[in-house]
Amino acid sequence: MARNPQLNSHGGLRHLLSIEGLPREIVVAILDTAEPFTEVAEREVKKLPLLRGKSVFNLFFENSTRTRTTFEIAAKRLSADVINLNVSTSSTAKGETLLDTVDNLVAMQADMFVVRHASSGAPYLIAQHLEATRRPNVHVVNAGDGRHAHPTQGLLDMYTIRHYKRDFTQLTVAVVGDILHSRVARSQIHALTTLGVPEVRAIAPKTLLPSEVERLGVRVFHDMREGLRGVDVVMMLRLQNERMTGSLLPSPQEYFKFFGLTEDKLALAKPDAIVLHPGPMNRGVEIDSAVADGGQAVILPQVTFGIAVRMAVMSMLAHG
Amino acid sequence: MARNPQLNSHGGLRHLLSIEGLPREIVVAILDTAEPFTEVAEREVKKLPLLRGKSVFNLFFENSTRTRTTFEIAAKRLSADVINLNVSTSSTAKGETLLDTVDNLVAMQADMFVVRHASSGAPYLIAQHLEATRRPNVHVVNAGDGRHAHPTQGLLDMYTIRHYKRDFTQLTVAVVGDILHSRVARSQIHALTTLGVPEVRAIAPKTLLPSEVERLGVRVFHDMREGLRGVDVVMMLRLQNERMTGSLLPSPQEYFKFFGLTEDKLALAKPDAIVLHPGPMNRGVEIDSAVADGGQAVILPQVTFGIAVRMAVMSMLAHG
Amino acid sequence: MARNPQLNSHGGLRHLLSIEGLPREIVVAILDTAEPFTEVAEREVKKLPLLRGKSVFNLFFENSTRTRTTFEIAAKRLSADVINLNVSTSSTAKGETLLDTVDNLVAMQADMFVVRHASSGAPYLIAQHLEATRRPNVHVVNAGDGRHAHPTQGLLDMYTIRHYKRDFTQLTVAVVGDILHSRVARSQIHALTTLGVPEVRAIAPKTLLPSEVERLGVRVFHDMREGLRGVDVVMMLRLQNERMTGSLLPSPQEYFKFFGLTEDKLALAKPDAIVLHPGPMNRGVEIDSAVADGGQAVILPQVTFGIAVRMAVMSMLAHG
Repeated sequence: MARNPQLNSHGGLRHLLSIEGLPREIVVAILDTAEPFTEVAEREVKKLPLLRGKSVFNLFFENSTRTRTTFEIAAKRLSADVINLNVSTSSTAKGETLLDTVDNLVAMQADMFVVRHASSGAPYLIAQHLEATRRPNVHVVNAGDGRHAHPTQGLLDMYTIRHYKRDFTQLTVAVVGDILHSRVARSQIHALTTLGVPEVRAIAPKTLLPSEVERLGVRVFHDMREGLRGVDVVMMLRLQNERMTGSLLPSPQEYFKFFGLTEDKLALAKPDAIVLHPGPMNRGVEIDSAVADGGQAVILPQVTFGIAVRMAVMSMLAHG
Repeated sequence: MARNPQLNSHGGLRHLLSIEGLPREIVVAILDTAEPFTEVAEREVKKLPLLRGKSVFNLFFENSTRTRTTFEIAAKRLSADVINLNVSTSSTAKGETLLDTVDNLVAMQADMFVVRHASSGAPYLIAQHLEATRRPNVHVVNAGDGRHAHPTQGLLDMYTIRHYKRDFTQLTVAVVGDILHSRVARSQIHALTTLGVPEVRAIAPKTLLPSEVERLGVRVFHDMREGLRGVDVVMMLRLQNERMTGSLLPSPQEYFKFFGLTEDKLALAKPDAIVLHPGPMNRGVEIDSAVADGGQAVILPQVTFGIAVRMAVMSMLAHG
Repeated sequence: MARNPQLNSHGGLRHLLSIEGLPREIVVAILDTAEPFTEVAEREVKKLPLLRGKSVFNLFFENSTRTRTTFEIAAKRLSADVINLNVSTSSTAKGETLLDTVDNLVAMQADMFVVRHASSGAPYLIAQHLEATRRPNVHVVNAGDGRHAHPTQGLLDMYTIRHYKRDFTQLTVAVVGDILHSRVARSQIHALTTLGVPEVRAIAPKTLLPSEVERLGVRVFHDMREGLRGVDVVMMLRLQNERMTGSLLPSPQEYFKFFGLTEDKLALAKPDAIVLHPGPMNRGVEIDSAVADGGQAVILPQVTFGIAVRMAVMSMLAHG
């Protein structure tokens, strides 16, 4: 496999596996390509022929209706034929290997796989296999793998920040919450540093931070009030339900007290700071409703931009 | 919210939530609009471009393959992009609220929600929220909410009656069965009285009638033979499986004996009386196979007209 | 019902229920029709308008994501509107009969049913019912019924054999494995004898062979090495998981030792022999990975040809 499996020999996007290792120009090209797609969504007829006659497979080894829906809409608005495969209950149950499943779908002339998998690295494994079996025209989009990456989420967050703040190189950005278990956080941090954000802060209790997190280029804060002081952007993370009752946290109420984003904590950030959340939100756990529905939240624009960013990624992959 | 949340400021259809409160002219307009759509279904190419580029979300919080299918076909024949969301197993399980789910889908530029929900009022709540968040171009169709309403069922029943009987103002119509738990019955009774049917009869055992049912404008009968005498139209209701073994009824066999529609009971109605059933039928419980498959049954035409009525509702909503 | 329910009065294909009873000319016509469809799959825009505006229902009473996917892709590439119905969890659970479900979908103007059912004969029953209710323009494709038949699998296998070997009348073909429980084996054997293959061998342990299997026109072998000697084509069958631990077989390891296709066993076949498998494979049970991934395996081309064959069947049915 080439040194950078995400790029083709001309330096164009071949797969989207992770923001880590993606050149800055490609990240910017995706954001730029997404711009006109936001206008398509405003039209009477929300439809472009860019993927007409292409077969896009939503290959979900882990259930996620919301993420699948965003990719399904993006692909349908590009006129693709979309096939949803919830693989957990299917061939895998019959003992078929991941790569046999992929080989079969490639033999059905799949053009693109949107892959969600509980194991980190599964999309990379598929991309590697497509390389090994010489399938340069079949593309992989990582829609979330284990704790590793969720690159379209990271990209839509960057689109959102650029939309409201224009220049990345003047920003202080805080990522807040369960960074340890979050593929979203990883993708966000890589995207922010790639785009030249000078100060990225990681705010989390000690039990929810990966060891050596500083290596990612972040400043660590365990006190949320301290960490939020003067930031331009607050990126909240979702607290997975399974963490709330585990040994890592005392209780949702306790978590909210120290790491839930309330109006008084947000007041420590810059007055024009924006608040992001990848959804679905646990209101009253990691975010207070007053903030979620308040004037600084850009959580719903994130969703809108997310469709445009996914359309951009898919059309760039299909047209090399 | 406007006094009548189902209408826009020009008196056109904005949402379809319930037949209760729908002006007679709108009900008639839906039936009239549906007429040409029945012809589309006879064509070689069953496809019209009226909803091309629109995103229709089948938002089913309660499983119902049959109802979802009818809306899915109707939307696809209008060339819409259709996304099926079985929400029970998705975001709701992750703790997201109904309105957060709706906000997210609106942010993805949904044009229409077809909503099925176990709680009465859920589609109304969504419509109210769309009003509050100023989304006049997003529409809601109630596909069945709790015990409240199932308006497209009521409308397709009216289409069927009009097709066979032409003039509503000369008819005696009987609604038979579990009226207490039936959203279908409620929608039918409102539709029949709205369209000027002079005598609507409710035939049911005492345990399966809502208290003060007479307020809906029906005549109550506990003896089926008496209630069927001389009627033009017999509208059978489905007996839900869960009622059959409950404390409200002795047994399916006993129910059939007293409230099952048999040929000899039907003989008491007018000779040209028609028999409707919303499906799926419990043969031998609320209806005898001889009647279900007999010459007076119009149960399959109901299904055919149901597609046309749903196409009519969707196109009226989309084009104001 | 006509003597041959699969043919219309002009001798054209009306339903595809089983290869048994299908005239040789029809089988050949399907293979010939499929040829140009393999080219469609190579195009930039994999889309033909042959089923535009037709409603194809994937009516799966038994879960099979893989088979459903192949039909869904085939129908979408022909521009049909496709509706997936997983009926096990739907109306049937509500007590509706198979034929009531079919009647309802016909009333929704279904054009084609792709039927998968655990009971042998279910697609035939549906075809018979369509005949009885005078629906000559509604077509049935059997996508696997009980132990009876899986005709599109048999046809794609024939397409594959013809592609590599051209002339059926010179071949020796071995079908290997659990023939007793395999609808695939039954369809293959009928297809091979219909197309004039002079020697069809059935290789299986005694416990996995139907009684009187010789009546199908096969030569029986219980020793795999003996049976493979000199064959042109090896058609491996999948060993169902539920058989592996049952009383019919000692263990998967034991099965592999005697009936698993290894390189040394395959060496007994002709040097240019090809190996087929319907998938999904149990590597190390009925087939060794070295063979599955080796130069003689045509397992992935089978999948590719399968899409073309299904497109051929669907377009022949629709344009009868």
